[in-house]
Amino acid sequence: MATIAMKFGGTSVADIERIRHVATLVKREVERGNKVAVVVSAMAGETNKLVAWTNDAARGINNLAIPDQREYDVVVAAGEQITSGLLAITLNAMGVKARSWAGWQVPINTSAVHGSARIEGVPATEMKRAIEGGEVAVVAGFQGVAPGVRISTLGRGGSDTSAVAVAAGIGAARCDIYTDVDGVYTTDPRIVPKARRLEKIAYEEMLEMASLGAKVLQTRSVEIAMLHRVPTRVLSTFTPDVGGTLLCDEEDIVEKKPVTGIAYSRDEAKITLHKVPDKPGVSAAIFGPLADAGVNVDMIVQNVSEDGETTDLTFTCTRGELTRALAAIETHAKDIRYRSVTHTADVAKVSIIGIGMRAHPGVAQLMFRTLAEKGINIEVISTSEIKVSVLIAEEYVELAVRALHSAYELDAA
Amino acid sequence: MATIAMKFGGTSVADIERIRHVATLVKREVERGNKVAVVVSAMAGETNKLVAWTNDAARGINNLAIPDQREYDVVVAAGEQITSGLLAITLNAMGVKARSWAGWQVPINTSAVHGSARIEGVPATEMKRAIEGGEVAVVAGFQGVAPGVRISTLGRGGSDTSAVAVAAGIGAARCDIYTDVDGVYTTDPRIVPKARRLEKIAYEEMLEMASLGAKVLQTRSVEIAMLHRVPTRVLSTFTPDVGGTLLCDEEDIVEKKPVTGIAYSRDEAKITLHKVPDKPGVSAAIFGPLADAGVNVDMIVQNVSEDGETTDLTFTCTRGELTRALAAIETHAKDIRYRSVTHTADVAKVSIIGIGMRAHPGVAQLMFRTLAEKGINIEVISTSEIKVSVLIAEEYVELAVRALHSAYELDAA
Repeated sequence: MATIAMKFGGTSVADIERIRHVATLVKREVERGNKVAVVVSAMAGETNKLVAWTNDAARGINNLAIPDQREYDVVVAAGEQITSGLLAITLNAMGVKARSWAGWQVPINTSAVHGSARIEGVPATEMKRAIEGGEVAVVAGFQGVAPGVRISTLGRGGSDTSAVAVAAGIGAARCDIYTDVDGVYTTDPRIVPKARRLEKIAYEEMLEMASLGAKVLQTRSVEIAMLHRVPTRVLSTFTPDVGGTLLCDEEDIVEKKPVTGIAYSRDEAKITLHKVPDKPGVSAAIFGPLADAGVNVDMIVQNVSEDGETTDLTFTCTRGELTRALAAIETHAKDIRYRSVTHTADVAKVSIIGIGMRAHPGVAQLMFRTLAEKGINIEVISTSEIKVSVLIAEEYVELAVRALHSAYELDAA
Repeated sequence: MATIAMKFGGTSVADIERIRHVATLVKREVERGNKVAVVVSAMAGETNKLVAWTNDAARGINNLAIPDQREYDVVVAAGEQITSGLLAITLNAMGVKARSWAGWQVPINTSAVHGSARIEGVPATEMKRAIEGGEVAVVAGFQGVAPGVRISTLGRGGSDTSAVAVAAGIGAARCDIYTDVDGVYTTDPRIVPKARRLEKIAYEEMLEMASLGAKVLQTRSVEIAMLHRVPTRVLSTFTPDVGGTLLCDEEDIVEKKPVTGIAYSRDEAKITLHKVPDKPGVSAAIFGPLADAGVNVDMIVQNVSEDGETTDLTFTCTRGELTRALAAIETHAKDIRYRSVTHTADVAKVSIIGIGMRAHPGVAQLMFRTLAEKGINIEVISTSEIKVSVLIAEEYVELAVRALHSAYELDAA
């Protein structure tokens, strides 16, 4: 008998019939003797509808207006509230004692950054008592309560984070993330049909996979799982008895291949400043204004100076940030003193990830050779202890991912 | 400059365009120098959708199951939460500082009777401060917070009650109920085209009108308005500058006709117990079990005993309670000792209402004569100081209402 957290995403609760299926999965855990907290997203489609309403409400008045973020949260959070109530109704009708908990009731305390708030703590004293008393707690995901007792939301995908934070908050033995795929794969199976499901993946690896483009889990949820050492499983709502992937400590993984998985992201844009002065202080002149403009600079490369006086500097950010980045650079043109600026969004980032890299030298070399053999030019490189990322032309993404998947012997037999 | 409460129903906020219209009405009050709390219903159609989901969720499991009432409230209350956020977004985009307040945030404290909770108090300390600071408070109607910090709802039409209770709670000088009609009429204009809008109506009269079938305001909202002496206006969202009806003290009405209005209700059922013993204790034997079964007995008539030993007893309840009432009587047949029981739902109640009745004798007599002249049989009569109600066959409702409207000289010129 253990306390476990379960999480179901929007497609898993898309209609009443699916909510009923979710209820049977919850009931099964209760019948196994487990105590359960279940975290739910909004029914698929509901969030989009609510978001569209908030935009209409603001833009009808003024085409430039964006919705007041705190009120946006009030509207959008209603989606998960509805699902939590419906699942609790279904469970009670099945004879499983259950009650819903909105973010403010748990409480899931968050920062005041409405629309993309950060979970700061899940005291959950009363909810824990209810769970220990045998009642299933149905928690509205994606939401919390910000300072001033205002409703907040965590931003898209935040329900994963809610689930892991609730699991940590109630001291759950396990957090099961039910989704529409049956686990974490070596790479995106839509690109590489030979991709394999991983039985286990280390928290650190999953964190890199998620932040480098793998969409199966939200980055912040993996951070919390890692921080609180919550054993987290990814498994399919529709085939819950097969497969699944366990996020665990590095020590719990016996066979450590040099590369565990390959991630990619198309949400990349590249900006190059030509002929900037090659002297101290120029980086600060460039990246200070970008940070102020809320641009998250990712990869950076500075060319070797040819004339000893100027150099070219290239960096990447997300496509959504491109316009803001260019505006910030133009505004500070006098301080930066570049000759010209070029930019493109036709780039993508491909990354190899693996804790085994630490023990295997030459892992990056194989990546570069493999891409070279396919005639793919590497524009920027960035590395960390357990990953190597390269920026390439977007049109080569599939080719690159497939070639690397084979080169690192990840293909299924 | 005054603090006022405004209330908009579901048809007034049915889509974003209408919410925008509501925002302009709120803005106008702010520009007049007023401080405003605005109470909103769910967008027309939303509540029905949410209610249907709760029923599906419960019934899919077990055809007899009704949704857990506390979770029903969680789901349904989301409707008003959404509207409150959308109106706050619209107002902010218009440059009118506004924030939404859910029932639990105000707080609107209610009883624990989920699904039809009763407002017990609206402390609203913080909200009052925000309003005094010049911020429009957009309150989610129809909901509150029950003991145990659970979301509660007031039952259909509860947003009127929310509005008047909020007006009382913040000490508003006035409560304006915007709806799809432009005031309170002498009777239902769909039946009597010559019905006239009333400029003023006394709280007591409105209370009788509402509880006897007039649908323009919820009974409980009138009770609260009367109790706290909140001057309450009913006016049209779509033509806010014409007409309207003010609920006020009896003393503020100069011309007191004997009859102010005529109400009717088709939601009536009649049960007759034949040959019950005509002796003390029989009423208790009948009405005790009915009260236990949650049946609200309305009109009662006991015939004169013909044999000196038994009598016939007739009473009415709503059509929804008929089955429960018959079951309760059957269960207690031994104690009541009736010969037989008959029942019908083909009846309706027609009432004349007016504070002027107190000063004018013979008012009821005109009612009975008018109905007799039309050949309408009166089955049951009940009276109070300011109303006379009669039960008649349902098919005569329109005829009776029209005849009485003329007889009491209420027809528009």
